[in-house]
Amino acid sequence: MTDVAREADVSLKTVSRVVNGVSTVDPEMAARVRAAVARLGFRRNSMARDLRTRSTSATVGLLIEDLANPFYAGIAAAAAQCALENDTLLITASSEEDADRERRLLLQMCERRVDGLLVVPAGSTADHVYLRTEIEMGTPAVFLDRPPTNVRADTVLIDNAAGARSAIEHLTARGHERIGVLSDWLSIHPMSERLSAAEAALERAGAPYRPDLIRFGLHHVPDTEAAVEEMLTGPQPPTALFALNNRLTLGVLSALNRLGRDVAVVGFDDFETAGLMAYPLTVVSYDARAMGRIGAELLFERIGGDASRPRTVVIPTTLVEHSGAVRPAPPAPARD
Amino acid sequence: MTDVAREADVSLKTVSRVVNGVSTVDPEMAARVRAAVARLGFRRNSMARDLRTRSTSATVGLLIEDLANPFYAGIAAAAAQCALENDTLLITASSEEDADRERRLLLQMCERRVDGLLVVPAGSTADHVYLRTEIEMGTPAVFLDRPPTNVRADTVLIDNAAGARSAIEHLTARGHERIGVLSDWLSIHPMSERLSAAEAALERAGAPYRPDLIRFGLHHVPDTEAAVEEMLTGPQPPTALFALNNRLTLGVLSALNRLGRDVAVVGFDDFETAGLMAYPLTVVSYDARAMGRIGAELLFERIGGDASRPRTVVIPTTLVEHSGAVRPAPPAPARD
Repeated sequence: MTDVAREADVSLKTVSRVVNGVSTVDPEMAARVRAAVARLGFRRNSMARDLRTRSTSATVGLLIEDLANPFYAGIAAAAAQCALENDTLLITASSEEDADRERRLLLQMCERRVDGLLVVPAGSTADHVYLRTEIEMGTPAVFLDRPPTNVRADTVLIDNAAGARSAIEHLTARGHERIGVLSDWLSIHPMSERLSAAEAALERAGAPYRPDLIRFGLHHVPDTEAAVEEMLTGPQPPTALFALNNRLTLGVLSALNRLGRDVAVVGFDDFETAGLMAYPLTVVSYDARAMGRIGAELLFERIGGDASRPRTVVIPTTLVEHSGAVRPAPPAPARD
Repeated sequence: MTDVAREADVSLKTVSRVVNGVSTVDPEMAARVRAAVARLGFRRNSMARDLRTRSTSATVGLLIEDLANPFYAGIAAAAAQCALENDTLLITASSEEDADRERRLLLQMCERRVDGLLVVPAGSTADHVYLRTEIEMGTPAVFLDRPPTNVRADTVLIDNAAGARSAIEHLTARGHERIGVLSDWLSIHPMSERLSAAEAALERAGAPYRPDLIRFGLHHVPDTEAAVEEMLTGPQPPTALFALNNRLTLGVLSALNRLGRDVAVVGFDDFETAGLMAYPLTVVSYDARAMGRIGAELLFERIGGDASRPRTVVIPTTLVEHSGAVRPAPPAPARD
């Protein structure tokens, strides 16, 4: 930090404020600090590499939205396995879609001197400029599921547009044109990508525009249930529903069951019990563990010194039709 | 370590081998080393506490079987939240039920100087004597779901016996006496507890002993499916099945669906989609997140200096009857 202050010709305090992402720093001064960090960073990186055998913490950090959600649990399990193969342990924390919490947790990880970061950015408006210095100072970051804001780094994404398109085309090919779409917060990158692609596919199929059939901001299961109920009890109810993530799909199925209604359902994200539901369910499936594995592999390449251009890896999706479990005729009497 | 070697009158190398749990050390010497550690441990602990503000790593380790299993993901999420409230981050790793892997991961965590350990012991025969020294040297451990072997420490368990008993009583009260029981490896403590309690309840209910209806060692879904198929296609098939964990329950439901059969099912462990299955499903439910939260709370009390007698907390179970989702009559035609 002292070197950076000297190089940028600013006070140590200013360097510290820039490093910590304090937004009230004079932009020109902040730019000077960042330029100095970038100039010094290269040297530091090589130094860090030379020292790695004795100075590494042999931990990497993973920040996800919610460890208890099976989508993220799969990512965490795959990342932990890849870390282990690199003699490294994984620190895990949940942002709960809160940008302040995300920032606090990531900086705590950096304080613990993690060797690198795997980050699913929080869906609330986030700015990752505070990570820029950490990255330039030699703590690489790889972003998962959602691209970073104001920082360049390796990113692993799902092919959200192709997945959403295939879901709508599946439904329109079966004659549906009143298709309800349910989305989480649009500040979550995959949600806005999926919704845009779904709308474009509906447009291409010539489906009439029905804004009342597009519902977003549904982050909790009860909100989703209420939205489905409203749609289905309206004057021209949808004949099909497309839920943009696994939590929304559960809300849809639960609402259908409560209402005793049956409409075609497609959900983004496959899940373990999808084939055992009472309702046939088509899902946009992809290899969620691959996101954790590929992300961790990219990170360890960076930790190993790879200084090439930032990469974006896109994981393909496929449509899987689960036919639904069917309960047969009532069981034989219990007593012989 | 030098102090311990002097106190125990053995070489530094011997201390190191005992600390690392090498089993070829002369037992008498090993006992001397442990006694020395215990004598010195108290002093070290107090020293460690005094130094804590500057020497803590502010991380704790959590070792579970498989981060991707929703049961463990819930524990991890709750433990991470409690850690965060204590300004501490959580290192997570999966043992995959392998005792060697468990031991390697826990010692790696200790090398990273974690402040404490949360451990779900691997189901293969494990001996936690190697942790005894770590615990006595001031790294407390709390065991979750399964008690430790050869070491005394706080433990959080589920009331497996009461849960299994209530499951069998639920079935026998409904007239079932040919009840198939499906278990994972019996080296996994909750499995043997649940199976013993189930057998005792069957005995009390006067159900005839049918060893062909008790199947254990089923660790993967395909094994479970095959066991269910064998039972149901046998001469006197069960009219009810009791699956001793969530993975086994999925195998049972999947087998029933494939065979087009319907028998009463009770499963240990509730799960998010349990109420949306085509089959009515009764589950032995409990607060899985409480296990993570209570375990972490106990750990932070120990880290904070609590040196009281080791405690065992038992989490109660309740029986929850999910009525199963019912798909209504075929949907209205898609086109208006």
